[in-house]
Amino acid sequence: MIIVLKSQSEDKDINRLLEILDNKNVQAHKVNGLDSKVLILSGDTHKIDPYSIESIDIVNKYIEIKDPYKKANRLFHSEDSVYNIKGKTIGGKNIALIAGPCSVESQQQIEDIAKKVKRDGASFLRGGAFKPRTSPYTFQGLGTAGLEYLKEASRKTGLPIVTEIMSADYMDQFVEYADIIQVGARNMQNYALLKELGKINKPILLKRGLSATIEEFLLSAEYIMANGNDKVILCERGIRTFETYTRNTLDLSAVVAIKRLSHLPIIVDPSHACGRDWMVSSLSKAAIAVGADGLIIEVCEDPENAVSDGQQTLTPFCYKKLVKELRVLAKAVGRDIA
Amino acid sequence: MIIVLKSQSEDKDINRLLEILDNKNVQAHKVNGLDSKVLILSGDTHKIDPYSIESIDIVNKYIEIKDPYKKANRLFHSEDSVYNIKGKTIGGKNIALIAGPCSVESQQQIEDIAKKVKRDGASFLRGGAFKPRTSPYTFQGLGTAGLEYLKEASRKTGLPIVTEIMSADYMDQFVEYADIIQVGARNMQNYALLKELGKINKPILLKRGLSATIEEFLLSAEYIMANGNDKVILCERGIRTFETYTRNTLDLSAVVAIKRLSHLPIIVDPSHACGRDWMVSSLSKAAIAVGADGLIIEVCEDPENAVSDGQQTLTPFCYKKLVKELRVLAKAVGRDIA
Amino acid sequence: MIIVLKSQSEDKDINRLLEILDNKNVQAHKVNGLDSKVLILSGDTHKIDPYSIESIDIVNKYIEIKDPYKKANRLFHSEDSVYNIKGKTIGGKNIALIAGPCSVESQQQIEDIAKKVKRDGASFLRGGAFKPRTSPYTFQGLGTAGLEYLKEASRKTGLPIVTEIMSADYMDQFVEYADIIQVGARNMQNYALLKELGKINKPILLKRGLSATIEEFLLSAEYIMANGNDKVILCERGIRTFETYTRNTLDLSAVVAIKRLSHLPIIVDPSHACGRDWMVSSLSKAAIAVGADGLIIEVCEDPENAVSDGQQTLTPFCYKKLVKELRVLAKAVGRDIA
Amino acid sequence: MIIVLKSQSEDKDINRLLEILDNKNVQAHKVNGLDSKVLILSGDTHKIDPYSIESIDIVNKYIEIKDPYKKANRLFHSEDSVYNIKGKTIGGKNIALIAGPCSVESQQQIEDIAKKVKRDGASFLRGGAFKPRTSPYTFQGLGTAGLEYLKEASRKTGLPIVTEIMSADYMDQFVEYADIIQVGARNMQNYALLKELGKINKPILLKRGLSATIEEFLLSAEYIMANGNDKVILCERGIRTFETYTRNTLDLSAVVAIKRLSHLPIIVDPSHACGRDWMVSSLSKAAIAVGADGLIIEVCEDPENAVSDGQQTLTPFCYKKLVKELRVLAKAVGRDIA
Repeated sequence: MIIVLKSQSEDKDINRLLEILDNKNVQAHKVNGLDSKVLILSGDTHKIDPYSIESIDIVNKYIEIKDPYKKANRLFHSEDSVYNIKGKTIGGKNIALIAGPCSVESQQQIEDIAKKVKRDGASFLRGGAFKPRTSPYTFQGLGTAGLEYLKEASRKTGLPIVTEIMSADYMDQFVEYADIIQVGARNMQNYALLKELGKINKPILLKRGLSATIEEFLLSAEYIMANGNDKVILCERGIRTFETYTRNTLDLSAVVAIKRLSHLPIIVDPSHACGRDWMVSSLSKAAIAVGADGLIIEVCEDPENAVSDGQQTLTPFCYKKLVKELRVLAKAVGRDIA
Repeated sequence: MIIVLKSQSEDKDINRLLEILDNKNVQAHKVNGLDSKVLILSGDTHKIDPYSIESIDIVNKYIEIKDPYKKANRLFHSEDSVYNIKGKTIGGKNIALIAGPCSVESQQQIEDIAKKVKRDGASFLRGGAFKPRTSPYTFQGLGTAGLEYLKEASRKTGLPIVTEIMSADYMDQFVEYADIIQVGARNMQNYALLKELGKINKPILLKRGLSATIEEFLLSAEYIMANGNDKVILCERGIRTFETYTRNTLDLSAVVAIKRLSHLPIIVDPSHACGRDWMVSSLSKAAIAVGADGLIIEVCEDPENAVSDGQQTLTPFCYKKLVKELRVLAKAVGRDIA
Repeated sequence: MIIVLKSQSEDKDINRLLEILDNKNVQAHKVNGLDSKVLILSGDTHKIDPYSIESIDIVNKYIEIKDPYKKANRLFHSEDSVYNIKGKTIGGKNIALIAGPCSVESQQQIEDIAKKVKRDGASFLRGGAFKPRTSPYTFQGLGTAGLEYLKEASRKTGLPIVTEIMSADYMDQFVEYADIIQVGARNMQNYALLKELGKINKPILLKRGLSATIEEFLLSAEYIMANGNDKVILCERGIRTFETYTRNTLDLSAVVAIKRLSHLPIIVDPSHACGRDWMVSSLSKAAIAVGADGLIIEVCEDPENAVSDGQQTLTPFCYKKLVKELRVLAKAVGRDIA
Repeated sequence: MIIVLKSQSEDKDINRLLEILDNKNVQAHKVNGLDSKVLILSGDTHKIDPYSIESIDIVNKYIEIKDPYKKANRLFHSEDSVYNIKGKTIGGKNIALIAGPCSVESQQQIEDIAKKVKRDGASFLRGGAFKPRTSPYTFQGLGTAGLEYLKEASRKTGLPIVTEIMSADYMDQFVEYADIIQVGARNMQNYALLKELGKINKPILLKRGLSATIEEFLLSAEYIMANGNDKVILCERGIRTFETYTRNTLDLSAVVAIKRLSHLPIIVDPSHACGRDWMVSSLSKAAIAVGADGLIIEVCEDPENAVSDGQQTLTPFCYKKLVKELRVLAKAVGRDIA
């Protein structure tokens, strides 16, 4: 870490700062430039609160050099992380295809769609049992019953289940029923939940918050990993910008950045990113081309009558066509779709 | 609600849409304009998922007319909500002043600062016992001990306590120790937590999420109210924009909007909004002038050595000066500071 | 267009509104819903200022139904626009590759790089002679000399020239020297310039403004087309968001949207979007996969010594490798690279 | 400036970088920290392109220490700039009130409103003769005739004129008719125009671009000043964010920041920032409280029939009431309204 001092800083004030640092077991090497004085720090620099240092009058800037995340950092784990989940893989050369409805609506519905997405190429089944809805007056999901329906659909098709948790209160059920536990965008910084997920041994699909920076996203993964669970799958699902034509703005450059900064697999959710069914296909292709490790796509039999998110949902017919095109594309960029 | 159809829609498709609506107990009045066909809906329109309707080919736009929040809506509750909390008020003509350190660090620290902010004009004491930190490796708060220190500081000064909850697991402790329970910006859409807070009888200070729209903010308040607790205090604390000079961008127009849309009191947190101590004073004045019902400001004895957020924290000396100026200003805009 | 009235509107106020509309030659068809009254308009609705209508007390919402752009609208021009520029095409099945340095620095430099990018697959040469720089103290371009160097490089290689205009004062020179005239992101809403460009007969490459919505972007194209020049090429080059890791956020969903909304070709500038050379290759592939009609990429011999934008610039070696990979990808999505 | 090198940088690569710097007449002082190597630069550092330096493999970060703007910088001009314009002042203790319609519509209209805003307390008259409109099909202003009407209104009332220029082609007319020449938000980075405005001797009202950072805003002022005209007045008018309830988000923290960073006066345009007439009053008060040097407010006789921007425009009745309240408020914060 580096502290840039104001050029007119006086020695007595600098000495006081050195003392504050020394009390925190941080050593400072002082350098006089022509235009500025600079302190180069070493030691227990993680104990320093940058904001407190910048509150000191003589301090111009405090500059972080090291990334604040460690376990998620590729610097200390150069190989791509690859997870094997009930015989299916996420990470590595293979591209994982996750598909299913926004919400579980009934046993029949989820089983039917599970069979279809499996037939059409998906390796994982998604479906929401607990739904985070902006309004308290809209459908909140079937809850535990939804988890049971998913489990049964998984038993019949062999597809591992991806489903969203909203509170650690239901952790036992999720550990029993889900194969990958999803944390939604709105809970990306629900640290109490992340800590609990760090204590279990099950892959976590962590969605990027609507206005989370790449660094904050990796730090949320770090919360899970620092608590003991290193099986984190990241998911870019669009960020909030001024553009209103699309629901969110899919940030594919984040995929490129994260592949370089971290060893964790990162998949893309084009459905929530754009909110329009006719965009899903093109954005899925772009995600594969840019280097994503998988796609999570909303598919249901009857989007018009869906209780949630119909506008962005593909029919099985469209999904089948898309997967076929993705196979060609994956090959062109040196990836496989199992 | 209104559905605008594409101009070339055919009758058979329109009839199919009318059927879908009818199944949901929604009546549609059809009107033919010159350029477009329009359906005006009545009945159980809240059961309709707008995204599902927009997924239908012949639909051009689905337009909401009514606000989706009810209990928080001024339309059905024209008087300002005013809460009396241990003899202090929030809402109405009076401006509530909440002050204290970012984190509770020790019994001594919190008692000292409590006495000082009380002396200087604050009516409520703030302090974090459980801290939502971006990195898992930074100070996470004293936890339960912090709550106890706050309670003791309250006992000695008479100031009611405002402190942040991060998980419903600690609800009992918060009900016992806190007078106002704060929900941080990162948890604004932690619906599991909001529902639990709806079941207790204690004022909730709900902070706006970093990228939450005004409507989403009011819907999060609605989550608490719909579950039974109508004592919600809103807090604007800056939104995330492209500007990097300030930590966030304080959105004072949101205060004006919310005073019109809702009867709930809304206060402003200038400290977190700007992240720079020398801005706090000017932004506090602007908040009063724009019509805010209170201010929550970080004050601590020794910002340079604070374990968190030093940069944006006022010393008691500066806070005292600010409150003096705020009294003059409040009077000029017809408000009181008790 | 539709006007939604407040439910409590009185007849005398509605009649006054009808009069205002009638004065502007707009007919209103009034419909009474259960919850709201609605006016459906026809006639000269483009003469209405939405903001003025919304300033009327009884008006709840004013809703546009028709897109405000006409000549750029695919609705009235269903075929893709394709331009032939000195034997090279932009638009249609072919993907146009534009490459070259950020700034023209010397005759030697631009000729050398022109030969190399041609050899490596580019069909068009880019290079800045007039440079829009954030600071008045940085290199502002060689000006007219730069245009002459570009022309000479074009003469020797046969590559048509793409270069940016900053003021209509130099229009004659640009008409003489350039084959495609670029309007930079900062000038996307410089309407005086757009109008002048509408009066010439030369393709215009219009870059999206940093915070321009898709609709505003198409309306800026409309400014050029409405003034007589219908050869507009759109360019997505990243929008400004809260993310700071990348210079801007490349918005590839805008490409998908624009291909549906408009018949104009749209290309992508990955170099300016990300500002990091190692991202350019992946983002270029994503752009092709998503359906872009071309790529404009910064290539120079010696990025480290470039007078501007070195960080995002590829060497000819990297560009050659990229084009090879793009050819494979283009084929996989049914496109050609000539 | 500081260059932070990657920890594993080798000497031969560092020496090559030192050579590149030396060629640009920049000296580098090398310091070895424990975790990183750092170069502290002196000499002609403004000749360095940060992006080119960051394109070098061994470079981790390039850090600017000095502000890139000089003439606009308070560091070199500690006193507030104050301009006297036909006997009225902008800057200093006085708060300037600028008012008038969005567009000049006729001689009668502008004279009537000029008299009224003068009577109600305004010191300057605003009105658009050349209008930057998003669509080419909406009213574009009366042009030169509008300037003449403004001049006549000024002659009759004594109010100096503020009006927007869109192209340097009309510079002579603006120099003749206007007292303050406005540059609109969309032209904030129209550098060709800024350079021309730097060559005249007339105050320039420079509006902040919709997504301009504070630093970019000051650099645009610097463009005018570096070309010889140091009479720049800045204007905060709202930035573009995700919030859609307001037209833009008024960024009052930018006012506080700019008062510290620069000596230039900064005023606020609440009308364009919010786009809603009933917000203008509260935001005007907040602007005064936060420290703005003036307000530019849209006022017209008949907002409902205005050809542009009716929704955000006050009637003279409301304006009069507002000015009365602002006088009280200005006094409370130690400012005057002449």
